[in-house]
Amino acid sequence: MYCFGVDLGGTTVKMGLFQDDGCLLDKWEIKTRVENEGEAILPDIAASIKEKMEQMHIEKEHVIGIGLGVPAAVVNGAEVMETTNLGWGYKAVKRELEELIGISVRVENDANVAALGEMWQGGGKGYNSLVMVTLGTGVGGGIIVNGRILSGKNGGGGEIGHLVVQPDETDKCGCGKTGCLEQYASATGIARLARRKLAGNQTETVLRAEGVTAKDVFDAVKAGDAVAKEIAEEFGAYLGYALSNVGAVLDPEVFVIGGGVSKAGEILLDYIKKYYVEKAYNTCENAEFVLAQLQNDAGIYGAAKLVLAPDKE
Amino acid sequence: MYCFGVDLGGTTVKMGLFQDDGCLLDKWEIKTRVENEGEAILPDIAASIKEKMEQMHIEKEHVIGIGLGVPAAVVNGAEVMETTNLGWGYKAVKRELEELIGISVRVENDANVAALGEMWQGGGKGYNSLVMVTLGTGVGGGIIVNGRILSGKNGGGGEIGHLVVQPDETDKCGCGKTGCLEQYASATGIARLARRKLAGNQTETVLRAEGVTAKDVFDAVKAGDAVAKEIAEEFGAYLGYALSNVGAVLDPEVFVIGGGVSKAGEILLDYIKKYYVEKAYNTCENAEFVLAQLQNDAGIYGAAKLVLAPDKE
Repeated sequence: MYCFGVDLGGTTVKMGLFQDDGCLLDKWEIKTRVENEGEAILPDIAASIKEKMEQMHIEKEHVIGIGLGVPAAVVNGAEVMETTNLGWGYKAVKRELEELIGISVRVENDANVAALGEMWQGGGKGYNSLVMVTLGTGVGGGIIVNGRILSGKNGGGGEIGHLVVQPDETDKCGCGKTGCLEQYASATGIARLARRKLAGNQTETVLRAEGVTAKDVFDAVKAGDAVAKEIAEEFGAYLGYALSNVGAVLDPEVFVIGGGVSKAGEILLDYIKKYYVEKAYNTCENAEFVLAQLQNDAGIYGAAKLVLAPDKE
Repeated sequence: MYCFGVDLGGTTVKMGLFQDDGCLLDKWEIKTRVENEGEAILPDIAASIKEKMEQMHIEKEHVIGIGLGVPAAVVNGAEVMETTNLGWGYKAVKRELEELIGISVRVENDANVAALGEMWQGGGKGYNSLVMVTLGTGVGGGIIVNGRILSGKNGGGGEIGHLVVQPDETDKCGCGKTGCLEQYASATGIARLARRKLAGNQTETVLRAEGVTAKDVFDAVKAGDAVAKEIAEEFGAYLGYALSNVGAVLDPEVFVIGGGVSKAGEILLDYIKKYYVEKAYNTCENAEFVLAQLQNDAGIYGAAKLVLAPDKE
């Protein structure tokens, strides 16, 4: 038996064909056509899956289902109310895609789906309750409790990037509020911390060039740069404190750290754990921290897992 | 059919006999004997339940089970690793009580049990996912997701009182760390905010007496006292911000506010909601806030519910 895992992003749709034992047989991408309120997106996905099935001689009866991760809050594994970068307003995603292709579909938020993927075949393998934090352009989060995605009433569960960590902040977050974790721990947030640090002191550092990035900061940390280390401490304090609060709420088994920033490697976990342990409540201070492993494939793995072990809520 | 709900506290054990339709038939209390490492506690509970069954002519076959809330982190609905005020170290509570009485037992943390009780028959009735916050001597928390208690890996789920809300705090929380929500939003925390406020200004206020309490503060708020209102704003800011972070993690349907401080009534919710909405992420900013309704009976109701609709994790 087979299933498809689909990771729908604002520019590309990543797709994977899996065996039901978790083996990835094939993966490919198509363009996300957001024009005309994204009306072509679901038909394009359906057509691409049909084409793959013909090419591989797979009959409909042998496909368990299609899992789909979307960059939006998802309600009831089926519907989105609005999207910021697909052109969709309200959309009954599950029903529409099922009507197009005649195969069972389940939809969830992409960050939650990535968390499920990492639990199934990535850094969180062997765990049952985890928190995934994706440090990219923004900070995404996904929560799995007892093997199930925690999506919340409005699909807003796991929005860890919007934990308020600095009530005194004056700059606005993309969400419109101020002081969100994303403003300090995303790639752009780390670059912002760096610019603030450089503006406020004259210490010699390799970072004093145009357009400092999060990667520059952690490369400089590894090279022993003192200013870069101070910036990494600030990053670690914001993220470590925030995750200690997530720990007090959820008491998870493990935190899985992914996204572009996580390419810095184990040193990143050291900065986070240092501050996590300082503030974590006793019962959860031994939570583990691991790096994500599936990178850009976490979404297709997690989406496939959605239909392999459906949430029986 | 019947069941028993038992709420084990450090000084008394509250007990309730329920019909399986949720009707409370009888409730009573016994003393908690903590001496000799609390060795008498479970035998006392078993004896009291047996006595009640004889008195009411209830046969063992007609008892679905006994639910027990304990003031400790609980693992697997069965065991505690340590307790701070029962005298117990590690204890296989479920197994021991089952051996004493021959009826199925399920054990959970008391704050989580109270949350379940409020969802079943109290302020959270009709909801499926809620966060209960108990503002008493400390700040307790209980989380229900899709009708199930979220207890976490080590039984530390829902420890909302130990969210760090003030990283710069120098006073220590009872847990040994600094800056926990409990230091600002519990009855003792509010009194502490009041003492700090009074020490720092000379404005006339009815609060300038010996031993100001949380009740004094909210009574003065209702009487229009300006200083008391400032203290209530501080309390609201700490609790509202903390709950906005809980909201970003869980996206619950409703926050249920209980404990002695909640006797201040609806005005308390106004102070909390004001700051919650200011910092809450978009998807969860419409969460509802209600007052708890079961007061001291929340524990026996929730404990009974544990065995009526057992968590099948």
